[in-house]
Amino acid sequence: MSCGKVYGPSELDYTCPDCGTRRGTLEVLYDYDSAGKEFREKVKSGTVVDITRYSPLLPVENLDNLPPLRVGGTPLYGFHGLTEELDKIWIKDDSGNPTASYKDRATVMAIAAARQRGIGTMTCASTGNAASSLAGLAAASRMETVIFVPAAAPEAKIAQLLVYGANVFAVEGSYDQAYDLCLEAADKYGWYNRSAAIHPYLVEGKKTGALEMADQLDWDLPDTVFVSVGDGSIISGICKGFRELVEIGLIDEEPQVIGVQAEGADTIASAFDSYDGGEVTIEDRTASTIADSISVGKPRDIVKAVKYTYENGGRFLTVSDEEITSGLVELARKRGVFAEPAAATAYAGLKKALGRGDLADSHEVGVFITGSGLKDVSAAQKGVKGPMKVSPDLAEVDYALDEHGLDFGD
Amino acid sequence: MSCGKVYGPSELDYTCPDCGTRRGTLEVLYDYDSAGKEFREKVKSGTVVDITRYSPLLPVENLDNLPPLRVGGTPLYGFHGLTEELDKIWIKDDSGNPTASYKDRATVMAIAAARQRGIGTMTCASTGNAASSLAGLAAASRMETVIFVPAAAPEAKIAQLLVYGANVFAVEGSYDQAYDLCLEAADKYGWYNRSAAIHPYLVEGKKTGALEMADQLDWDLPDTVFVSVGDGSIISGICKGFRELVEIGLIDEEPQVIGVQAEGADTIASAFDSYDGGEVTIEDRTASTIADSISVGKPRDIVKAVKYTYENGGRFLTVSDEEITSGLVELARKRGVFAEPAAATAYAGLKKALGRGDLADSHEVGVFITGSGLKDVSAAQKGVKGPMKVSPDLAEVDYALDEHGLDFGD
Repeated sequence: MSCGKVYGPSELDYTCPDCGTRRGTLEVLYDYDSAGKEFREKVKSGTVVDITRYSPLLPVENLDNLPPLRVGGTPLYGFHGLTEELDKIWIKDDSGNPTASYKDRATVMAIAAARQRGIGTMTCASTGNAASSLAGLAAASRMETVIFVPAAAPEAKIAQLLVYGANVFAVEGSYDQAYDLCLEAADKYGWYNRSAAIHPYLVEGKKTGALEMADQLDWDLPDTVFVSVGDGSIISGICKGFRELVEIGLIDEEPQVIGVQAEGADTIASAFDSYDGGEVTIEDRTASTIADSISVGKPRDIVKAVKYTYENGGRFLTVSDEEITSGLVELARKRGVFAEPAAATAYAGLKKALGRGDLADSHEVGVFITGSGLKDVSAAQKGVKGPMKVSPDLAEVDYALDEHGLDFGD
Repeated sequence: MSCGKVYGPSELDYTCPDCGTRRGTLEVLYDYDSAGKEFREKVKSGTVVDITRYSPLLPVENLDNLPPLRVGGTPLYGFHGLTEELDKIWIKDDSGNPTASYKDRATVMAIAAARQRGIGTMTCASTGNAASSLAGLAAASRMETVIFVPAAAPEAKIAQLLVYGANVFAVEGSYDQAYDLCLEAADKYGWYNRSAAIHPYLVEGKKTGALEMADQLDWDLPDTVFVSVGDGSIISGICKGFRELVEIGLIDEEPQVIGVQAEGADTIASAFDSYDGGEVTIEDRTASTIADSISVGKPRDIVKAVKYTYENGGRFLTVSDEEITSGLVELARKRGVFAEPAAATAYAGLKKALGRGDLADSHEVGVFITGSGLKDVSAAQKGVKGPMKVSPDLAEVDYALDEHGLDFGD
């Protein structure tokens, strides 16, 4: 992504040795003439079931190397717009993936690559969705996993990894120290590394959400899509997916991609604002937001996210924790979709853009919901008032309904 | 289910007035000649996407009355058997439904019925999956919900309902008192009641899991299926689904249905053991098990569950909380499927039956996984050991791997 050197697929796994792990993230390129032809042929018939439908544009030589669980094929819901100007909102709900997040799309690519190389142990550093995704999907593939988490990670999150049988190291230190320790251990023991942004195939998996949205809409996409941004890998994948669909002639124009970050974790949004098409300026900061899955101060895929969004013609915006919580509650109440805070951040961004009048020329928008609300119920709790307390007595129900001004008689 | 009286679809909504709510549960019957013909025609082409595929055998007049979320179409995973004798285990994983449980299949039937009648408010008494299912799907349908929970229900479970915008009454009393209060309130205010077993259409929704499993296997079903049992509605639906597939000629023989209850909540299993084909003997008891979704002492669909399982030629067995927890962990570790304890109970039942030699004549089995493990991570936590603590130092990783006898060098 930085020096422009080109490597063959079996030459290296992770990042450009000359540029280092951060600036040296790789981009996967295809022979778009032949892959495009095969892709267009494949999506002509049948319906969306899972990501294997997009195999001509995926770096998987043998589909048998994918874990035996259904990844992708998630529902796309169309709702009336939030305002009169907006005709429709499409919600791409990825909470029904095997481990309840968008990350499963990426994990399966890393697992397939490891199996292709005959490696039986996967590793990553993460406290959140990437770790549970790796633990779950590797378990289904009967592989070993070694996961590095900061010792301060919530017990319930660590428990999910342990249930899947992962070997978990609780590292007395920061996420960044856990990340570096994972790098060293992967190198020493020969484990295959699925840490954020380290492997270019992860973004290939993440682009399938964009391909799938287009496919489900019969290649007639909304003009604008919103996605939340932490490490920068998902937005990179989505931009790349749309770009490739233009490249192979299935769509004429890319939807504008709007990355939404939490105000307290806006490293990429800030780098984007000062970006002029040259080298990306990286200024890491300390992150703090309720949306834990995007609470990232040192985003690993920042170079790709900034460059791809710039090429897309997209942009970034930030939302406060209050806006995230109220977006989460509105999404659940009005659409029946219970998202984790990081996922609701995309919806909060849509609301903010609408409020500002940013979408005056927009007719239809898409929103990627990247994780289930069940991952972090306590955050949702902050957005709601308590229940009404009554004795088992109908008169008290009557009184409470009246007191709260509720009238549901039909 | 008890007196044998027959009513037309618009004559009443809930239970037989002569038999009361418990013994008076209704059974939905179709004109199987015409419905069967239509059903067989419909499933000939296309693939499984959601439950609307089975509309000829569903009591929904207008599919537009269903909530706009994808219910059903959940994956069916085939794994090698646990023992040499057993060729294959099919896991029907319903954790990817909109509110992450099997209950969504039933809820949509009640919502469609309410909308057909022009009723805009739904109610139920529940602490668990039925309540969150109703709250979520009713929200997507822009309906009001009023939910009665015992005041002692866990805060996180109540929070999920509130996030979806449900009006929640925390009743100072037992679940049974909340259930009765809900009945009274539904009657007084004209709300449509989705409490367990009260509405015969709920079991119609629940049968779709059986139809879908058969469809996904091209009508070539396993010889035996396992399902956990609480109120008795899911097993009733599954038995009815298989029976109707025989009735309309899509399968020759019903799989044997094995209901699995927790030892501490075995009212139905116990009633089944003394059942001889006549009237069902009901002896309620106090329930206590880690599997909260089936922790039911006074099961509401006991008559249907016992009679249908008897007619199916199936049976019941019980498992301990320890067996449930170890089943949950094994399912996650060996299959990558993270189930809630009540769902893992079915898998624990399979393990127990195998251990006893009960499945000597069995070749393939099916297991219904009825809810996501994310619903109750604390229960899963009981089945695992903690992580390995290290400083950010590779030597400590090395030492810990050695100490734990782990060797993942590839």
